[in-house]
Amino acid sequence: MAEKTKGHPGGATKNTGLRDVVAASTRISQVDGKRGILVYRGYTIETLAENSSYEEVAYLILYGKMPTQIELDQFTEQLKRERWIPRVLVEFGQRIPHTTAPMDVLQGTVPILGGYDNEASVETREANIRKAIRLIAKLPTAVACWARSREGRDFIAPREDLSHAANFLYMLHGKEPDPEVARIFDICLILHADHQFNASTFACRVVASTRAHMYSAVGAGIGALAGVLHGGANEEVMKQLKEIGAPEYLESFVREKLDGGGRIMGMGHALYKTMDPRASILKSFASSLAERTNSRQWFELSSKLDEVARKEFKARGKENIHPNVDFYSASVYTAMGIPTDLFTPIFAISRVTGWAAHIIEEKFADAQPKPVIYRPEAEYIGPGKDLKGLKYIPIKLRE
Amino acid sequence: MAEKTKGHPGGATKNTGLRDVVAASTRISQVDGKRGILVYRGYTIETLAENSSYEEVAYLILYGKMPTQIELDQFTEQLKRERWIPRVLVEFGQRIPHTTAPMDVLQGTVPILGGYDNEASVETREANIRKAIRLIAKLPTAVACWARSREGRDFIAPREDLSHAANFLYMLHGKEPDPEVARIFDICLILHADHQFNASTFACRVVASTRAHMYSAVGAGIGALAGVLHGGANEEVMKQLKEIGAPEYLESFVREKLDGGGRIMGMGHALYKTMDPRASILKSFASSLAERTNSRQWFELSSKLDEVARKEFKARGKENIHPNVDFYSASVYTAMGIPTDLFTPIFAISRVTGWAAHIIEEKFADAQPKPVIYRPEAEYIGPGKDLKGLKYIPIKLRE
Repeated sequence: MAEKTKGHPGGATKNTGLRDVVAASTRISQVDGKRGILVYRGYTIETLAENSSYEEVAYLILYGKMPTQIELDQFTEQLKRERWIPRVLVEFGQRIPHTTAPMDVLQGTVPILGGYDNEASVETREANIRKAIRLIAKLPTAVACWARSREGRDFIAPREDLSHAANFLYMLHGKEPDPEVARIFDICLILHADHQFNASTFACRVVASTRAHMYSAVGAGIGALAGVLHGGANEEVMKQLKEIGAPEYLESFVREKLDGGGRIMGMGHALYKTMDPRASILKSFASSLAERTNSRQWFELSSKLDEVARKEFKARGKENIHPNVDFYSASVYTAMGIPTDLFTPIFAISRVTGWAAHIIEEKFADAQPKPVIYRPEAEYIGPGKDLKGLKYIPIKLRE
Repeated sequence: MAEKTKGHPGGATKNTGLRDVVAASTRISQVDGKRGILVYRGYTIETLAENSSYEEVAYLILYGKMPTQIELDQFTEQLKRERWIPRVLVEFGQRIPHTTAPMDVLQGTVPILGGYDNEASVETREANIRKAIRLIAKLPTAVACWARSREGRDFIAPREDLSHAANFLYMLHGKEPDPEVARIFDICLILHADHQFNASTFACRVVASTRAHMYSAVGAGIGALAGVLHGGANEEVMKQLKEIGAPEYLESFVREKLDGGGRIMGMGHALYKTMDPRASILKSFASSLAERTNSRQWFELSSKLDEVARKEFKARGKENIHPNVDFYSASVYTAMGIPTDLFTPIFAISRVTGWAAHIIEEKFADAQPKPVIYRPEAEYIGPGKDLKGLKYIPIKLRE
């Protein structure tokens, strides 16, 4: 493991990913890694998963308060009206290589959507909330569109009579989802909507701090989420389950992995030293979903992997490693018939709400001091540290 | 101005953009803001501007050493061969709204280019250098393509017999540039190629730290560069010159701006407390270019603005504010017949080399400790700080 160099005045935290450095203040979400607590705007994730819908949570995260019925109706209506994507993008998707990674397509799509928004560069809080609504509404359509067009299947236009969660599954599969499946998917979206200063949100905030518009910033967030150490991990969890294949191979898989210095995908988290509260919620739904969809295989393998891996970690003196949000989302999405390489785009579909709220906070924070452009220091360890300048040797004389 | 909260162990630097926090170590470039020194891999920017070409500087930044003649020839050859962009992207550019911002088009293009690179997800240092070469080669083509297609003009294919700088001007204007103009443009590209942990480079490093591929990370860099507090500033400088219009309005413009708490675009820099060394170099070329292109108007207005603004800053006790790299690039690019809204994309065309080198450094650093995923802390100042969780009130009962 990397040795930690803690922050100190005037120079800190070299190569430790800014762990322990407070980059900014926020009113959006809070994580207590020791106790396993996550709140959005003060509400615990358990409360929201139990009582709320993704639409209501998106409202809460964007506006900082729970909506009244009228506010929620209006917000939901706006989301529904904004689900369309430009026809050119649909047709473009039919012509680029069908092997293009869904996250690349999504990252490429977002800045272009900026070109269709005549408020793209309007920098008021209200205009930014409207841009957020457009992005929250359009990302699912863009993902479902690409998921089908890469397979040569027709684009399915969004339906205004369906919820945010149900409409995505409808656009993906071409049929209305079972209401309970739609509700579990809705909860998945709730669980992924924000998580303080994770790498993708932080990338969004860095971009927003330059005063680039919301499409630029969200494009950056998608890029960061694609990494296997971040949002890409949920796809790796599924690949791992497939690699294991059956329960009898679990123990040897875990041991060999850990003996070789490898990691168990979906286990452990930078912040949580106990069970990730999102994983606990997912696990409970994963079980009932597995029943409902006749797909106990992956859920059971996940549960047993959880058990075996924790035991093995404990035996090695690592009691702090528990399943994270990616761990059970893999079997849940698979049970819903979602292809593995859409797991991370689905994460993006949800997290875009958090990104947008953080972008708005970066630009319009009422906190003191106000956020300024991110511009950390670097420690130069390259040649010519004295800055006198290396001598330029003519090319013919170089060896 | 924001009050500075300096870093201290276990929590630091709230809302101050990580100023004074060392995010990572680097071997790529170094800035001495007090003395006005910038080095790439140990070579001062003055040495490189005088002796080198953009191709050689790109090699230096990517490989960490000056090339031999054979190495430079091979590198230049690779760059030339990679200048093509997919036909689909050219045609797509003819169909999206012609008002789409060039930076948005560029940010949208890069992840899609990932879909055409079968090494996109190959994570070796060598494959990353090849990806860097592809991006350095293709970005100018993408920018020139959009600059023409939004005006309904035909795409001009790159020419392999021209230098990197000359070929861009050729693709933009449809005729071979004057060799001296091409050389000055080459120097502009050299001057913008890297600048340590500026916001766009830092955004690239944040994305790369998740292990997302180079196209994802460069896409984020483009998003950050678009902001008016970063790369977008050079366009603002030109708008400012046009707003001033003629020398007789300079003094009143500067005074009114500063009296109103506004800023003079292109003056002052987060790091340089003296003249930005890049601005000094640009100024000397700007003058000869103005002669050569019969366009003294903007250069002279810039010089006088420089003089008037510095005098005015001094009178207000701010002796540290000097022109930065954006200040003279505005009149230089305008003299070259480049539209104002391409200034920032041109910055990107050059900076992509620095971004790529930083992405590679983030992924393959031989420094200890090795870089880990960026995940700073946030100070939660929102509701329910005790994390007990706010009570969920049923929607019908909310007010």
